[in-house]
Amino acid sequence: MTMKLHCFGESGHSYKVAMALSMMDIEWEPVFIDFFKGESRSPEYRELNIMGEAPVLQDGDLTLTQSGVILDYLSSKTGKMGGRSADARREVLRWMFFDNHKLSSIAGMLRFQMNFLPEDKRNADVIAFLSARLASALKTLDDQLTNHAWLAGDDITVADLCCAGYLYYPEPFSFDRKDYPNIDRWLDAIASQPGWKPPYELMPGSPADRA
Amino acid sequence: MTMKLHCFGESGHSYKVAMALSMMDIEWEPVFIDFFKGESRSPEYRELNIMGEAPVLQDGDLTLTQSGVILDYLSSKTGKMGGRSADARREVLRWMFFDNHKLSSIAGMLRFQMNFLPEDKRNADVIAFLSARLASALKTLDDQLTNHAWLAGDDITVADLCCAGYLYYPEPFSFDRKDYPNIDRWLDAIASQPGWKPPYELMPGSPADRA
Repeated sequence: MTMKLHCFGESGHSYKVAMALSMMDIEWEPVFIDFFKGESRSPEYRELNIMGEAPVLQDGDLTLTQSGVILDYLSSKTGKMGGRSADARREVLRWMFFDNHKLSSIAGMLRFQMNFLPEDKRNADVIAFLSARLASALKTLDDQLTNHAWLAGDDITVADLCCAGYLYYPEPFSFDRKDYPNIDRWLDAIASQPGWKPPYELMPGSPADRA
Repeated sequence: MTMKLHCFGESGHSYKVAMALSMMDIEWEPVFIDFFKGESRSPEYRELNIMGEAPVLQDGDLTLTQSGVILDYLSSKTGKMGGRSADARREVLRWMFFDNHKLSSIAGMLRFQMNFLPEDKRNADVIAFLSARLASALKTLDDQLTNHAWLAGDDITVADLCCAGYLYYPEPFSFDRKDYPNIDRWLDAIASQPGWKPPYELMPGSPADRA
């Protein structure tokens, strides 16, 4: 049965899952969430996901939210891009928690501040604060990739898709690949895998629609 | 064998694990990290955890980092406070990802800004920004607890300990229990369980040491 992914193009967390679905060669279709018109804050959407967030995955009767949970589910279900032992699975989860805690959470807020908030609502101090936090997380990621081709174990896993998700977006958010040579090489390696596509080619909705 | 938890009192992520160890009645001992003297940023500590974060759990030869991974490990190992099916375990993980992404990450930065940063380095705009983000996450938590005694399923799980960790700290960080009646009731319910103790009674190091 075709899986449904409730998502929108700008959502980095949705993109992680869309990448996984495409790269694992799973049959799926997007269901557009009109985030910029407030759809994810509506009572109807909160019925689907009380957290009011994208993405939501529907696989038959199963409804899942939180990209980390969905990525773990997809790798378990397909046997692809997951850890093959309890230890390896924990290492995958470890990088996904790091990402949610220190990397994508900050990148998401910063990208929103710098691109999607009206200019008169942007705050330079908040942007400077978030940029410094993001740089610290990117340094940790780059350090790990100095001696590792992939984040968790010897092969590509959903931990790579999770941590890389935001880093493929074209909007400025104080991240420049040239400052992080190991991340740069790793992003190219992920993008050369079968099924990879950039965010606005995988999901409906993009800044161009609102220009 | 006695488990070792590398931690310090002020670390909310360490506290989540210390609570779990105590409430699951596991034999453990703390290993103090002198965070405020920069120990977690030292090369030696980065050898233990490249993320430079607390906590780190050592169980015999196994070294684990990221509180979400450790909580999942402890509930699997003991059969306590975890989901009992794949669906239930995913619901536990879901709230732990929400916590890392939207709740503890923000609460941690905000508490640091308002209490541990020198006064001349605190930024009112950053504090206002983080306070608004925290209020939004607390609202989601309070909504979920309106119709649920515990966050994930019918019994207390590590998802409850995860989301509650920061909320037991006495320092001000714009959280007032009176504003969130369901959270207030739930924090009392967790604290009435056998083995529960407040953060500075479970781990070495506290603001009093640096006064």
